[in-house]
Amino acid sequence: MFIFFTSVGLSEENNFRLVIHGGAGDITEKLISPEQKKEHEAKLTEALQAGYDILSKGGDSLDAVQAAVIIMEDSPLYNAGKGSSLTVDNKVELDASIMDGRDHKAGAVAGVSKVKNPIMAAYKVMTKSPYVLMGGVGAEQFAAAEGLDIVDPSYFVIESRVEQLKRVKEISHKIDQEKGVDAALYQDPLMYDYKYGTVGAVAVDIRGNLAAATSTGGSTNKHYGRIGDSPIVGAGTYADNNTIAISTTGLGEVFIRAVAAYDVAAQMKYRDTPLAEAAMNTLNSVKDMGGSGGIIAVDNKGNFVMQFNTKGMFRGTIGSDGIPQVAMFGP
Amino acid sequence: MFIFFTSVGLSEENNFRLVIHGGAGDITEKLISPEQKKEHEAKLTEALQAGYDILSKGGDSLDAVQAAVIIMEDSPLYNAGKGSSLTVDNKVELDASIMDGRDHKAGAVAGVSKVKNPIMAAYKVMTKSPYVLMGGVGAEQFAAAEGLDIVDPSYFVIESRVEQLKRVKEISHKIDQEKGVDAALYQDPLMYDYKYGTVGAVAVDIRGNLAAATSTGGSTNKHYGRIGDSPIVGAGTYADNNTIAISTTGLGEVFIRAVAAYDVAAQMKYRDTPLAEAAMNTLNSVKDMGGSGGIIAVDNKGNFVMQFNTKGMFRGTIGSDGIPQVAMFGP
Repeated sequence: MFIFFTSVGLSEENNFRLVIHGGAGDITEKLISPEQKKEHEAKLTEALQAGYDILSKGGDSLDAVQAAVIIMEDSPLYNAGKGSSLTVDNKVELDASIMDGRDHKAGAVAGVSKVKNPIMAAYKVMTKSPYVLMGGVGAEQFAAAEGLDIVDPSYFVIESRVEQLKRVKEISHKIDQEKGVDAALYQDPLMYDYKYGTVGAVAVDIRGNLAAATSTGGSTNKHYGRIGDSPIVGAGTYADNNTIAISTTGLGEVFIRAVAAYDVAAQMKYRDTPLAEAAMNTLNSVKDMGGSGGIIAVDNKGNFVMQFNTKGMFRGTIGSDGIPQVAMFGP
Repeated sequence: MFIFFTSVGLSEENNFRLVIHGGAGDITEKLISPEQKKEHEAKLTEALQAGYDILSKGGDSLDAVQAAVIIMEDSPLYNAGKGSSLTVDNKVELDASIMDGRDHKAGAVAGVSKVKNPIMAAYKVMTKSPYVLMGGVGAEQFAAAEGLDIVDPSYFVIESRVEQLKRVKEISHKIDQEKGVDAALYQDPLMYDYKYGTVGAVAVDIRGNLAAATSTGGSTNKHYGRIGDSPIVGAGTYADNNTIAISTTGLGEVFIRAVAAYDVAAQMKYRDTPLAEAAMNTLNSVKDMGGSGGIIAVDNKGNFVMQFNTKGMFRGTIGSDGIPQVAMFGP
C-alpha cells in the first residue's frame, strides 16, 4: 500500500520553508506510546524552531538545515548522532551529507565513530576541503583538524540500541540455524526493529536558495563497513536551486540503486513533472526494487512534499507563518 | 575547448559491444612517448579481447566488464589496482563499483588497500551481501571472507607513482609557503601529473543486457580518506537495460555533484535525448562546475559514446565484428 501525504505552500514575497524528517518505518499508534509521541512532537518542533530562528531573520537555508539536523543528532530519539543504531561490533558508524542548491557544492562523511555531529563534519568537507566525501578515520582526522567536537564512541550508545542489537542478533542466529547461512549478513538490514531512522532537513530561504542535509546511524547490526545512501549525493541528499532540495530515508541500498534523490529532481528538470508526482514515481521505483522509505523535498517557491510508502514517518514543517506542523503516522 | 568523439554502432541480431576507458586527462602526443603509446595500445587491446572472449561466446556483459577492468587493474599503466596514485601517506586507497542493468543491482567498495582487484570485491558486494557499498577495513574483511586475493599494500606501489607524489608534494609545499595555507589540501587534486586515470568498462551482450564497471586509485596526494565518484552509483557508474551502461572518469568531486552517470541516463529516460547529446550535456555541466573528464556509455542497441573534455582519454571498443579499436589522443 502506498501512503501519500503532501502539502503545497504558497508562493509569496519573503517566503521560506523548512521541512524535516526523523526517519520512516513501522511508525504506528500501536508501536509508539503516548509518551513517546509527545517526546517526538516536542523534539521535531524544537528542530523546526531552530531552523525557523535562522530563516525568519533572513538567514541561509544551508544554516537552517544544519541547525535542524544537529538538534536531531543530539537527541537519542533518532538514528543519527547520539542514539544511533549499533553495528555488529556494538559501535556506531555514522554517515551524513549536505548540499548547497546555489552552486551544487556538497560535503559528506561516511563511517565516522567519534565526531559528535556528523552533519557539521559534512559541512566542513564542503566548505574547507576540495573533496566531497571523506571516509572513516580520515574523515575523523579532518573533523578534528577543523576543530569539531570529538567524543568517545560510548557517547553515542544508548541502552535501547544495545537491547535492539541483542534482539536482532538473536533473530539472526535463529535464521542462521534454520537456513544454514550467515543470516546476519544476508538479512534485510531494516527487517527488525525498524522504527526510528535517519534524519534530514530541506529548506528554501527568502532569497530562494535551497539546501538539503541528511544524517544517519545506518542499519542495526551492520557489518563490513557498510555505507548507506545518506552520505551519497544523488541518493540520500540533493539540492539544486532550479528544482528542489531533497532528503531521503529508508532502505539505503535501494535508494542508492534508484539514485533516488536526483531521480526526483531529474523528472522535474527534464520533463517538468510536478514535485509530488515525481516523488511518488521515485518511491514507486524504490518499491519495485523491494525497498521502502520516505522523501522530503522543497522547491524554490516553498512547495514541499513529505511522502512515504512505510507505515509512518517522523516529519514536520514550518514556513513564514511560524506555525510548526509535526506528524508521524500515516493518514 | 570541448573535444568530442563518438561512434554509433549498428543494431543487429547477436550484436554485442564492449567499450573501455583508462582515464582522461592531459594525454597528448607530446606527453606520451611512442613506446608508452604502444604499451597502452597493447594493454587496451588485451582488455578488449578479454571482454570479447566472453561476449562472443554468448557470455554476460557483467562478466565482460569485470574481465576488462581486471586486466587494467593488474597493469601498472593505469590508476587502478597495481600502479595506483598514492595518498599523502604513500599508500593506496582504492575504490570500485559495478552495476547490473537487468535489475539495477550494484556493488562497490571504497578506500581498500589490500584487495588485489577492487572490482572483484565490488562484484562480491553486489552478489554476496545485502549491501551496495562497503568502506575501508570492513570491505577488506568481507573480500577476504569471500576468498578474494589479499595482497600486501606494497604490491600496488610502483616507482613512477612514488616520484609523482614527491613532485606533487614539492609543488604543494611551494604553494603552502606562498599562500600561507595548507595547499596540499586545498589544491585541485588532479592539477598535477594528471595523465593516467581511472579505468572503466561498459557492455551490452547478445541478450541486450547492460553492465558497467569502474575502478580507481583516486587522486594523487589525497588526504583524509577522500572518496571520489568511482564507487558511487549514479556518479561514476550506472547501468539500466532501458537506457545505458555508463562509466565516468575525471575530477571525481564534480562528477559526484553533477550525479554525472545518472544524469546522462535520466536525459534519455525522461526526455528521449539521444545518447551522444546527453553525454555532451552532462560533460558541459561538469565543465560549468569547474571539472573535466570523460564518459563511456553503451545502449542496448550497441550504440556507444567515448566522449571527453580533456586533451585525451585512453579508450577502446570492440563489437561483434571482433575488430578492436583503441585511441588515446583528441581528434
